[in-house]
Amino acid sequence: MVTRDSYHMTPDEFRTRGVEFINWIADYYERIESYPVLSQVKPGDVRSLLPTAPPITGESLENILKEIDAHILPGITHWQSPNFFAFFPANASGPAILGDLLSSGLGVQGMLWMTSPACTELETHVLDWLVGMLGLPETFRSDRAGGGVIQDTASSATLCALLAARERATAYRSNEEGCDGTLVAYTSTQAHSSVEKGVKIAGLGRRNLRVIDVDQDFAMRPDALSSQIKRDREMGLTPCFVCATVGTTSSNAIDPVRAIGEICRQEEIWLHVDAAMSGTAALCPEFRHIQDGLELADSYCFNPHKWMFTNFDCDCFYVADRTILINTLALMPEYLRNKPTDSGAVIDYRDWHIPLGRRFRALKLWFVIRHYGIEGLQFHVRRHVELAQEFARRVSAHPDFELAAAVPLNLVCFRHKKGDEANLKLLERLNQSGKIYLTHTSLGGKITLRLSIGQAHTEARHVDAAWTLIQEKSRGLG
Amino acid sequence: MVTRDSYHMTPDEFRTRGVEFINWIADYYERIESYPVLSQVKPGDVRSLLPTAPPITGESLENILKEIDAHILPGITHWQSPNFFAFFPANASGPAILGDLLSSGLGVQGMLWMTSPACTELETHVLDWLVGMLGLPETFRSDRAGGGVIQDTASSATLCALLAARERATAYRSNEEGCDGTLVAYTSTQAHSSVEKGVKIAGLGRRNLRVIDVDQDFAMRPDALSSQIKRDREMGLTPCFVCATVGTTSSNAIDPVRAIGEICRQEEIWLHVDAAMSGTAALCPEFRHIQDGLELADSYCFNPHKWMFTNFDCDCFYVADRTILINTLALMPEYLRNKPTDSGAVIDYRDWHIPLGRRFRALKLWFVIRHYGIEGLQFHVRRHVELAQEFARRVSAHPDFELAAAVPLNLVCFRHKKGDEANLKLLERLNQSGKIYLTHTSLGGKITLRLSIGQAHTEARHVDAAWTLIQEKSRGLG
Repeated sequence: MVTRDSYHMTPDEFRTRGVEFINWIADYYERIESYPVLSQVKPGDVRSLLPTAPPITGESLENILKEIDAHILPGITHWQSPNFFAFFPANASGPAILGDLLSSGLGVQGMLWMTSPACTELETHVLDWLVGMLGLPETFRSDRAGGGVIQDTASSATLCALLAARERATAYRSNEEGCDGTLVAYTSTQAHSSVEKGVKIAGLGRRNLRVIDVDQDFAMRPDALSSQIKRDREMGLTPCFVCATVGTTSSNAIDPVRAIGEICRQEEIWLHVDAAMSGTAALCPEFRHIQDGLELADSYCFNPHKWMFTNFDCDCFYVADRTILINTLALMPEYLRNKPTDSGAVIDYRDWHIPLGRRFRALKLWFVIRHYGIEGLQFHVRRHVELAQEFARRVSAHPDFELAAAVPLNLVCFRHKKGDEANLKLLERLNQSGKIYLTHTSLGGKITLRLSIGQAHTEARHVDAAWTLIQEKSRGLG
Repeated sequence: MVTRDSYHMTPDEFRTRGVEFINWIADYYERIESYPVLSQVKPGDVRSLLPTAPPITGESLENILKEIDAHILPGITHWQSPNFFAFFPANASGPAILGDLLSSGLGVQGMLWMTSPACTELETHVLDWLVGMLGLPETFRSDRAGGGVIQDTASSATLCALLAARERATAYRSNEEGCDGTLVAYTSTQAHSSVEKGVKIAGLGRRNLRVIDVDQDFAMRPDALSSQIKRDREMGLTPCFVCATVGTTSSNAIDPVRAIGEICRQEEIWLHVDAAMSGTAALCPEFRHIQDGLELADSYCFNPHKWMFTNFDCDCFYVADRTILINTLALMPEYLRNKPTDSGAVIDYRDWHIPLGRRFRALKLWFVIRHYGIEGLQFHVRRHVELAQEFARRVSAHPDFELAAAVPLNLVCFRHKKGDEANLKLLERLNQSGKIYLTHTSLGGKITLRLSIGQAHTEARHVDAAWTLIQEKSRGLG
């Protein structure tokens, strides 16, 4: 019941409802395979079930979970289903959900060290841990010249890297005088769309983004990068930023970070490395070759909210020289002045990203690392990679299917040999079955299906069933 | 115990630990007044208690809450304490915490309608509700030309508004060719620092931000805005963006939106209205005068995560013409193509803000509105405003203190008459006492203390005690 004296939920109601919610979530994970993975509702279906007007008088949340079951769940695409093979994984896990619950309960703001010292210090601590856990360059540590910060997404991290690059290249003149249309950024044809979005936001202009050719494995060609930089310099332009990708969205291609980094060092261009999903693989020493040369990068990000069981949002963004990032984004209005900041002895993370306010996101990451331990996380990465490799072997061995790209880790790009129309039809049949959810891309101009293996609970039996279903639904294609 | 076969937390452990967490949070709110409001730790104290290296082998989270009590809580500044009067409120509440818990559990991504239709449709629905609840212009509704979206913070909303303004002013040429240093933005001397941050990020350059003079109430002077626009046009520059503030950070000043809006209409300049905290006051018809003229605005934001009991992050951002925003931020790589998007019948919120991924944030807002109802929310706004007005009367009546600004709503700016040094000393005494937490600003060149009343559980007794403490700690000043 709503308490009429204050309208607040009483502690007792919070305890009662809270236990129901916890149990609902546990039940949800136990029954998740019974739902169609891709929501089957039509546009407007969910809204049509909701009351037109908000309530004047508050209601008890006593029956809300029944409404969630009836009105919301049909409109959910189940990212936590072990049969979710679309896009990239976006894993939650028990320890992450509880860490995030604690963050919601504490309700602190971490914009300044002073506004909750633990929020800042735990974040710095865990991000320093991850430098060691992933074998990242020591320069990314906070006790060296660099440091890490949690951002919401890789899109925002890329934007911050680009802004720092812009300011380094212009001696902070862009911040003061605005952009002038002469700065150039580089990425590959296979890079994530957020690079283009960032280039637009930061005022460089899309025509000043060069999308560099890739090799047969869809990885950026360093020779093509080099030539393009040369051409741009000859035209009087200023190359300022390269974004290399470790694990592209389309095909998981690994750009050659070392070769690109050597060019960037020589040309004095900021190198950002986007390893949003694949960065997690570096938990296992045998996969660290993907980031060979990372010590040449100025910034780096990967998303524990993809493949590391830490629910969204949690992107870890590192810089090799924090001073440039801070000089790019810092401001100090009087209403935020305080002694610890003035002393220079603390980190104020508001100067490391775009928003001012910030949630205590380090808790969930800390819980995940403590619960799984390094060996638990490695176990899952290895298992997912093995499952993908096995799936790739089956595709290769089948007369009607072919691999569309190399499979360095946990993403398999493949297609039916009957062409684009057949593949789109197959995709629709698979997704409409509700049994699995895949997405597509275009590689070398051909429609390609993507089977991304990384959901926390995906086991061999799920991948086996997916392969059986794919073969079944491909009958009579074309 | 960690299950060694998969390392995942078992459903049973999740249920057991989950109940402990729910009870811990309920207990936390019951004992919150026993903690010093402002954390008393020194830089490095929290980190010194944490293990240097991450665990190789996973640990049970069985004792984690004891560690939270011992290692984390001393480093927490208690934003949810009823004795928190600093900055702005950042309210959590039972229904919001549970809504956010459900969001963590479902773990869906709402970047496209298709990736979880309920995530998009509930958000659109609740943001349409709020148009009516707050008396916002009908053009902000999604069934008109506009629409609302949840952003993380007002900083990000302001940046998106500025980007849309930039593109409208240049017929999308800035996106294509980059900025050229001729666009000008305007805000008042009292605006939030995020406007300057946005101007830097968007490539306009800080020298192209005009900070307009304010009147005796610290509100933007429309005549000064008008003259500055004229001067800029005479210099061949292109005015493109005005940010007006409804409730400034320093003093809660209310810019005259109608007068500013009329200038913007005439000059064809984008008007963004930032009502981050004070926008919530419009739940009560008697306070809607603060947004008089809002129908002249192109965009608007307010933060339920400040004063509307919805935990961070939840900024509601509205535009009068969604096409401009979408044209500014949209991209369509092949790997995101899908039938519902191609049909044009759905909203894809990824094109309404900077990140691609997005959490199901509408749940917590929906829960809050349903739990409190309109009248419950109004009750708290009115109570907070009354408490602030009563506090202001006491300050005015005291011979040693004076009000530093008008008190339109729930923020009281005041100072001891003995000058800056005395006020800073008083502030330090108050905050070091641990009994309350206030912050300061500078108004008219003088150090000013701010008492912001808006924490969910702040009652008359807390404000009474704060005033008693302020008088007590002011003895012997100067």
